[in-house]
Amino acid sequence: MNAAVWNAIPAALPTSIRALMHAPVNTRLVVNGWVRNVRRQKRYWFAEIADGSSGQSLQIVAPSLLAKEGDLPITPGSCIKAFGVLQRSHGTGQELELLADDLQVTGPCDAGSYPIQKQGHSDEFLRTQQHFRLRTERMSKIMRLKSKLAHAMASWLHSQDFVQIYAPSITEHDCEGGGEAFTVSSERRPDFFPKDAYLTVSAQLHLEIAASSISRVFSMAPVFRAENHQTSRHLAEFWMLECEMAFCDTLDSLLNFAETFLRESCGLLSREATEMDDESRSRLLTTFGRPIPRISYADAVDILAKHPESFEYCPQMGRDLQSEHEKFLCDRVFRGPVFVTDYPAALKPFYMKLNPDSQTVACADLLLPGMGEVLGGSLREDRAHVLKESMERKLSPAACESLQWYLDLRKFGCSPHGGFGLGFDRLLQFALSVGNIRDVVMLPRTAGAIKY
Amino acid sequence: MNAAVWNAIPAALPTSIRALMHAPVNTRLVVNGWVRNVRRQKRYWFAEIADGSSGQSLQIVAPSLLAKEGDLPITPGSCIKAFGVLQRSHGTGQELELLADDLQVTGPCDAGSYPIQKQGHSDEFLRTQQHFRLRTERMSKIMRLKSKLAHAMASWLHSQDFVQIYAPSITEHDCEGGGEAFTVSSERRPDFFPKDAYLTVSAQLHLEIAASSISRVFSMAPVFRAENHQTSRHLAEFWMLECEMAFCDTLDSLLNFAETFLRESCGLLSREATEMDDESRSRLLTTFGRPIPRISYADAVDILAKHPESFEYCPQMGRDLQSEHEKFLCDRVFRGPVFVTDYPAALKPFYMKLNPDSQTVACADLLLPGMGEVLGGSLREDRAHVLKESMERKLSPAACESLQWYLDLRKFGCSPHGGFGLGFDRLLQFALSVGNIRDVVMLPRTAGAIKY
Repeated sequence: MNAAVWNAIPAALPTSIRALMHAPVNTRLVVNGWVRNVRRQKRYWFAEIADGSSGQSLQIVAPSLLAKEGDLPITPGSCIKAFGVLQRSHGTGQELELLADDLQVTGPCDAGSYPIQKQGHSDEFLRTQQHFRLRTERMSKIMRLKSKLAHAMASWLHSQDFVQIYAPSITEHDCEGGGEAFTVSSERRPDFFPKDAYLTVSAQLHLEIAASSISRVFSMAPVFRAENHQTSRHLAEFWMLECEMAFCDTLDSLLNFAETFLRESCGLLSREATEMDDESRSRLLTTFGRPIPRISYADAVDILAKHPESFEYCPQMGRDLQSEHEKFLCDRVFRGPVFVTDYPAALKPFYMKLNPDSQTVACADLLLPGMGEVLGGSLREDRAHVLKESMERKLSPAACESLQWYLDLRKFGCSPHGGFGLGFDRLLQFALSVGNIRDVVMLPRTAGAIKY
Repeated sequence: MNAAVWNAIPAALPTSIRALMHAPVNTRLVVNGWVRNVRRQKRYWFAEIADGSSGQSLQIVAPSLLAKEGDLPITPGSCIKAFGVLQRSHGTGQELELLADDLQVTGPCDAGSYPIQKQGHSDEFLRTQQHFRLRTERMSKIMRLKSKLAHAMASWLHSQDFVQIYAPSITEHDCEGGGEAFTVSSERRPDFFPKDAYLTVSAQLHLEIAASSISRVFSMAPVFRAENHQTSRHLAEFWMLECEMAFCDTLDSLLNFAETFLRESCGLLSREATEMDDESRSRLLTTFGRPIPRISYADAVDILAKHPESFEYCPQMGRDLQSEHEKFLCDRVFRGPVFVTDYPAALKPFYMKLNPDSQTVACADLLLPGMGEVLGGSLREDRAHVLKESMERKLSPAACESLQWYLDLRKFGCSPHGGFGLGFDRLLQFALSVGNIRDVVMLPRTAGAIKY
């Protein structure tokens, strides 16, 4: 950070520990943070404090007289404010430290009853303490990297002329069917909406409106599924990044774009997030740094059918791939990510573009090792008569009626187009190698989990 | 754009018109877009096409033979693909044009029944055509500027060590009370959640969890209000940008930060969004380019009470300010934006920090001319016993019970903190001087409006 930027930091907020690490020595500063640990020596008192602005902590050194035990209840977890001068550290493990001449405890913390203890806790225990678990080094780092991943993705998309669109979360469509959408209502005003209202399962249909004007659009927003999956990778509410592009007329060009997007945005994250560990950096590079193999659903089933002994459910043409099949393809066959393309039309939603074989659709799921699907995309059916037939076959008459506007898009200047949806939390889970998706989300929502 | 960046644009997507304007002349290109208008001369045929990547359109010139009437149904609204060579334009109004040697109509558009006609339409009519209205120049520009405003705000916050937090939309809290929260349920699984679930009205309480670990956090997400306001500035679903900051211990420092945030992010937008008109640029500079006056609620009521003849509702100490009062303060008294601070505690939610007078709370609403409130913020009550008393006075016993975690945050290392929520759509409405908030949102949701 250069001097100009340093000065531009608004005086409204005290200096963050991340910024302070770039300040000149001998600067007089006020710094705030939560105490990680404290140690007393005869003449000096030391505390390590963190403020979550980066993975770095700051050592505060004070004359023992200043921090007399009993006078100032400075314990792990307490929030303190230190006044002093930044200096080169005499100790090891840090370059800079703050020599304090005044200390205040702005938020005491009763060490006995504080749920977060120095020795560390299991992920399971921390899930019972969601209002405190972000104070652990691991969870605060996950949150910072999550924020940086989202910003890297948005920044790259902006550089490519993509426009972020804010599609509604409340919608009249329950399209993917199966009653997996939550319903929304107002207790006080039961007639608030003139018909049933649902929480969106995907912004895609709405994004197609925008793509037919602005060409390249994306949405980054929560989506909702009332599915009772109790797995390590499903949530009832999660954030999805969805891209939709006009003038995209082959599945290969769509997948080329998806690959480029993943490579460039994960690359940006790897370069900018200095606290990311080498293992994650290398996983992202290995996974997205080279072309991802593509295999058709039919070829995938052929391969899987040769290993019936490996599966609980026998892979069979015309049936959906199970998690165990996806895992086998990634872990045993491709030993890395793979796009599975061209599924049977019968297994996929009404809006996917029918291939010339009239049996399969121009779609792909991206499977990642140890994870399964993180991204699904397709060309969208842009021929009005083919779409109409597909809607009538797959949707209720009421749904067809309420989707007249979607059919109308095909009648007036409809470009070939396509897009994909990426499970943002899952991608992060993969990047950081986190076992359970509940641990990359501050307050996860699953069946039964509504606390907070 | 330099050559390196030019080459880096993934071949997966065809060149956008915005990018193409920076390409060298004589480049051979394929370009796609929607036809704005067409004109024929004896030897040449001209079409103006746009693709939404910027406010600019591109002129396509073709020998008349290539675009024979009848052969190619190129009408306004249709989507075409042109192959040709970029050259300096011989005409006026544009620097570059594409001399086409091949044309394809990828999406025909029946001129007779297409709802969007060249002569333009009223905002009211366009609201009945929400799946087509983004194709108007005005609406596509609003969407681009909306996306750029959001990115400018996020980029500035990132530069200041803020971390974006993804708080849940589904929550157990209906906190601000009054039954204004939507309820969420699953028809198929009535027991999906063990207790009533609501759509969030604000991420604030959840952000406080994150701020007590990561110090500076923000949320940019949809929030929901089942309020039956039929006005030009209320929606049932809107995006709110919320910032929450630890170590913020005076209302003035919070407002200084809010001012800096608005000045810097609107400044970034003004510099980067070349298509923003001078009027908007000047409005943003005038409004946010200098310190915003601050007046206490009590002083505001004193001033208003001197003009009883101006109001339908007589301003009175202890009663909430009405829209007409807010408008009077902005338009007649301050002739610009104003922060109204320190409202009576009785008028505000339980979490706001009680001032030393024990009557008012450390809060502020930012009022803008012609608009009213766009931002509301406060210090949060960080004293456990004061908070407990306020909760017990203002909330139901059940709500107090489910907010134990919120009280717990005060017991363990609680820093003084504060934050604000900004109505993102309203800020855009103000910046672009759009009369109705329904016209800055692709598919607005209000009481009765659920179509799409």
